[in-house]
Amino acid sequence: MSILVVGSVAYDGIETPFGKRDRILGGSATYLSITSSYFSDDVNLVGVVGNDFAESDIEILRKRGINLDGLKIDNSGKTFFWAGKYHFDLNSRDTLDTQLNVFETFQPEIPANLRKSDYVCLGNIAPALQSMVLDQVDNPKLVICDTMNFWIEGAREDLIKTLERVDVLIINDSEARELSGEPNLVKAAAIIRDMGPDTLIIKKGEHGALLFTGNEIFSAPAFPVLDIFDPTGAGDTFMGGFVGWLANSDDLSPENMRRAVIYGSVMASFCVEKIGPERLIDLAEDAVRVRYEAFKELSEIPGHA
Amino acid sequence: MSILVVGSVAYDGIETPFGKRDRILGGSATYLSITSSYFSDDVNLVGVVGNDFAESDIEILRKRGINLDGLKIDNSGKTFFWAGKYHFDLNSRDTLDTQLNVFETFQPEIPANLRKSDYVCLGNIAPALQSMVLDQVDNPKLVICDTMNFWIEGAREDLIKTLERVDVLIINDSEARELSGEPNLVKAAAIIRDMGPDTLIIKKGEHGALLFTGNEIFSAPAFPVLDIFDPTGAGDTFMGGFVGWLANSDDLSPENMRRAVIYGSVMASFCVEKIGPERLIDLAEDAVRVRYEAFKELSEIPGHA
Repeated sequence: MSILVVGSVAYDGIETPFGKRDRILGGSATYLSITSSYFSDDVNLVGVVGNDFAESDIEILRKRGINLDGLKIDNSGKTFFWAGKYHFDLNSRDTLDTQLNVFETFQPEIPANLRKSDYVCLGNIAPALQSMVLDQVDNPKLVICDTMNFWIEGAREDLIKTLERVDVLIINDSEARELSGEPNLVKAAAIIRDMGPDTLIIKKGEHGALLFTGNEIFSAPAFPVLDIFDPTGAGDTFMGGFVGWLANSDDLSPENMRRAVIYGSVMASFCVEKIGPERLIDLAEDAVRVRYEAFKELSEIPGHA
Repeated sequence: MSILVVGSVAYDGIETPFGKRDRILGGSATYLSITSSYFSDDVNLVGVVGNDFAESDIEILRKRGINLDGLKIDNSGKTFFWAGKYHFDLNSRDTLDTQLNVFETFQPEIPANLRKSDYVCLGNIAPALQSMVLDQVDNPKLVICDTMNFWIEGAREDLIKTLERVDVLIINDSEARELSGEPNLVKAAAIIRDMGPDTLIIKKGEHGALLFTGNEIFSAPAFPVLDIFDPTGAGDTFMGGFVGWLANSDDLSPENMRRAVIYGSVMASFCVEKIGPERLIDLAEDAVRVRYEAFKELSEIPGHA
């Protein structure tokens, strides 16, 4: 099944206690498409970059088999740039610089040949732009959406409209609490699912994730990573693994949604092992399967002897 | 197998956003012994109460089949009293009152008939008193120990001495970080296990628990409780379920340790549903098994289709 990925393509400046890059490939659509390319050979990226976007970075995406027909090169300016510095425990960070550049006027245009995409993956961009994408696609099989506190606070009405058209929403615990106005996550999930998404995933960082689908709740563990190098992109990577697995298996049963959540967690656990998307660029496909099994072992509750 | 429980027996004044009791049975040894009594009929409590301890509270413990030979009634004063008020989200609380009373001079004396106890369960009391218990017991099969930040900060040397003699340490994530001086829990666990305990359990509250035993890590989910009424005693209850299951099955394999962690989580999930130990007093044994299965379902990662 085909995957349409819409989001930001960026350069990031990243500083963690363990390393530093002044300028490395980033953005939600980048992480989403690279990650889902491990599961599907029909990944299509829609986004915008500026006149400074390096041919070598195009090459990174191309090598992963990602179709770039929808990647617009806007020569009027530079690529979206973000820089941040993580604190010692990696749980918080300061934004040092944000230059929207060509992303400021980005209006997603879905090329005609991508309008029949099966799995539509809306990265974390303004909800009005997410709706604009949905206006252009023709009856997708599944719409998966990310958002953040910035939009929950600043574009709530737009977001509510988008959510009515979304099948799977993936957000973190603080976003779930803010969106629902309810601290208990089980109750928050019910409120958010009433807004539209049949399925909700609440990411809890180092504590794993909760999946609410059908009548069930699934609690996914986080992988106990010994050395977290850089959390940048981990959330997008989770989403990319989730969507990639679902699109490849094309099975929306609660059981298979669980597998997808674990594949998301697997890919996120790799992402944080190196800086930026470095670890994701040439991962052995075998490693993905091996870590899935490690997740299974990690949380296996034995039956009674 | 016999279980020896040593800890506090107290009266608690509890105020949560959902209810209030001026005076309700509490204390670590109370929660530990009541909970482990669901798994074992050989639970023996060692502690002290004062001249105000109600016959009806003795009766609550007796009805659960708990042997009270080691419960000293000190007529020189009153029972340990603690009062606290929980904040809206139940994750933090203010202590309103602490009256140590007869607990201030408590020196655990293990009756002769309990010195050969198989499973020794050291509730959260001063590490020097925990060591005093270990001096009096005769080659127990397993020593399980709780502690808290108060002792990690204020009685570190005593605690280090106790830990050398402990098989299983059960603490929460902030305590593990403070005891080890290491923020990463996987690294913290290695440091703490080097101090003595072969097995370490790190409780993460609403995020479940991690078990480190042998060469494996087990990530246990928390039960998504819809209405948490009162978290008082949940940690002791977890330990009581863990010890109770282990002592009853008398199997220290990593696989069975996982079961014990889930039984601990099951019992803690019941504990928080009502105020104080109320929910634990007359739980249907069937309910325990049913919730174990619910935990299994909650975190089951499917294999590949």
